[in-house]
Amino acid sequence: MQRDENWFHEVDDVAGCAFSLKVREHLHSEKSEWQQIDIYETESFGTLMAIDGFIMLSDRDNFLYHEMMTHPALFSHPQPRNVVIIGGGDCGTLREVLRHEEVEQATQVELDERVTRLAEQYFPELCEANNDPRAHFYFGDGIQWMREASPDSIDVIIVDSTDPVGPAVGLFSREFYADCASALRGGGLLIQQSESPLYHMPILLQMNAAMREGGFSDVRHLHYPQPVYPSGWWSATMAGLDGPVRPVRVPDDLPPFETRYYSGPMHHAALTLPPFMRRAVAQGEYRPADVGEPEA
Amino acid sequence: MQRDENWFHEVDDVAGCAFSLKVREHLHSEKSEWQQIDIYETESFGTLMAIDGFIMLSDRDNFLYHEMMTHPALFSHPQPRNVVIIGGGDCGTLREVLRHEEVEQATQVELDERVTRLAEQYFPELCEANNDPRAHFYFGDGIQWMREASPDSIDVIIVDSTDPVGPAVGLFSREFYADCASALRGGGLLIQQSESPLYHMPILLQMNAAMREGGFSDVRHLHYPQPVYPSGWWSATMAGLDGPVRPVRVPDDLPPFETRYYSGPMHHAALTLPPFMRRAVAQGEYRPADVGEPEA
Repeated sequence: MQRDENWFHEVDDVAGCAFSLKVREHLHSEKSEWQQIDIYETESFGTLMAIDGFIMLSDRDNFLYHEMMTHPALFSHPQPRNVVIIGGGDCGTLREVLRHEEVEQATQVELDERVTRLAEQYFPELCEANNDPRAHFYFGDGIQWMREASPDSIDVIIVDSTDPVGPAVGLFSREFYADCASALRGGGLLIQQSESPLYHMPILLQMNAAMREGGFSDVRHLHYPQPVYPSGWWSATMAGLDGPVRPVRVPDDLPPFETRYYSGPMHHAALTLPPFMRRAVAQGEYRPADVGEPEA
Repeated sequence: MQRDENWFHEVDDVAGCAFSLKVREHLHSEKSEWQQIDIYETESFGTLMAIDGFIMLSDRDNFLYHEMMTHPALFSHPQPRNVVIIGGGDCGTLREVLRHEEVEQATQVELDERVTRLAEQYFPELCEANNDPRAHFYFGDGIQWMREASPDSIDVIIVDSTDPVGPAVGLFSREFYADCASALRGGGLLIQQSESPLYHMPILLQMNAAMREGGFSDVRHLHYPQPVYPSGWWSATMAGLDGPVRPVRVPDDLPPFETRYYSGPMHHAALTLPPFMRRAVAQGEYRPADVGEPEA
């Protein structure tokens, strides 16, 4: 695929497709200690952040991801007082977490401080809760942080990381999930982004299995649109430590703060899986034909 | 945006983005009486059909669209005996309609016979019900066909057309909807593809208003993923002639035939609108900030 200066292209070699955004200006480019970070001003998606060439977020559609990575878990916990975000350096997840007045402390554990500093500069709306006295920031390795976390100290863990390549691989492992299980208090919940239902079913199924092996007794998947991510269709996986994840405080309709995608009814809708996903999750394997993959 | 021979690019100038599929072979190209039709063999999406440069369908993901354009309406009608499809030349909607044993007659009214002939050749699975004795084919103008249809003769009308540009514009008009309303029997339903909730809210709202003006008393929107269409997130609009559209025969769980995306629970999930869409539909206008558009 040829490239030119007026477009940002994200090519997905495995899925044989690409998504491109028209760019007005390349606002910033740097190689941090961990990764290549680029900020663009796009024609119609507002500001765009890419890491190592992969789209992380845009002004236009990040509300879908941030709302769905946060509210389903927080409203499924009876009293989410202490919340930890692993990754989430753009602070959008933190902002949504802090909309819940039950939250007493929210700690964002991001590997790369530069992501947060650039978000403060280029995505100020996402950082508008950064000065909330309940917000805490730690910059360092989330895997090690979780290994050293006090047992029975956290209510909800949100893993808002990059894809399972490079530094994020360990965030998709049984060992990490076991550390999460140990750090969670009784009734604790974990939620993690789990890629595209159409393109990445092997990853989603591996996560399901690894979370169970790590000590979670109930694992559920939810799905939502996300135009700038591969296939435009994304998922999160939510795991409960003790028995079924229950929608204990899910609002009957709108939550007590303004949202654009999340609502009580949408909570249940997002957890409603299409039959091909249900079959795959129940059997621990998927039929390639169900996701349109050529038969081996 | 530059182009090269190994990729099919669909550029969306308004949304400032593009979706591309890696291509192995350009299988067919023709200018029919009505439009430019191209068939490609892609790397990972199977066969692809494009009309006038816009992706119509791929092997990989057409199940999402075809199931969601069909089963929600047919299971909301108490007895869908006579079904008419306007457009739908690839025959995938017809195939889904004929899975319903209540259907006695299904008529596909496609403007361009070449689309159907090419589908028979390149998408044989979608055409596997074409020899069903209940299937009828008419090639000609769907607007005129509906104007001349016998009153009170149809139970469900499915408008499976291209976008509201060129020959399809009339399929989004009050006049056409009034003709549909007249051709429907009591309790009749209309369903039509209604573009992307994120990119095309003006079209969706215009359709809602025009259907009501055309004589439909209840208009509802549903949404589902569709990776090859702009934003990867698509909608359909379902309108009822007499009172609220009710899920009269929606299965409690799986339908009596195999599906990949549709189920009874998914029926209700798809009709669950995010708050920003509910606000827009209730008010007949949307907030540009809700869909990430720059303020005027």
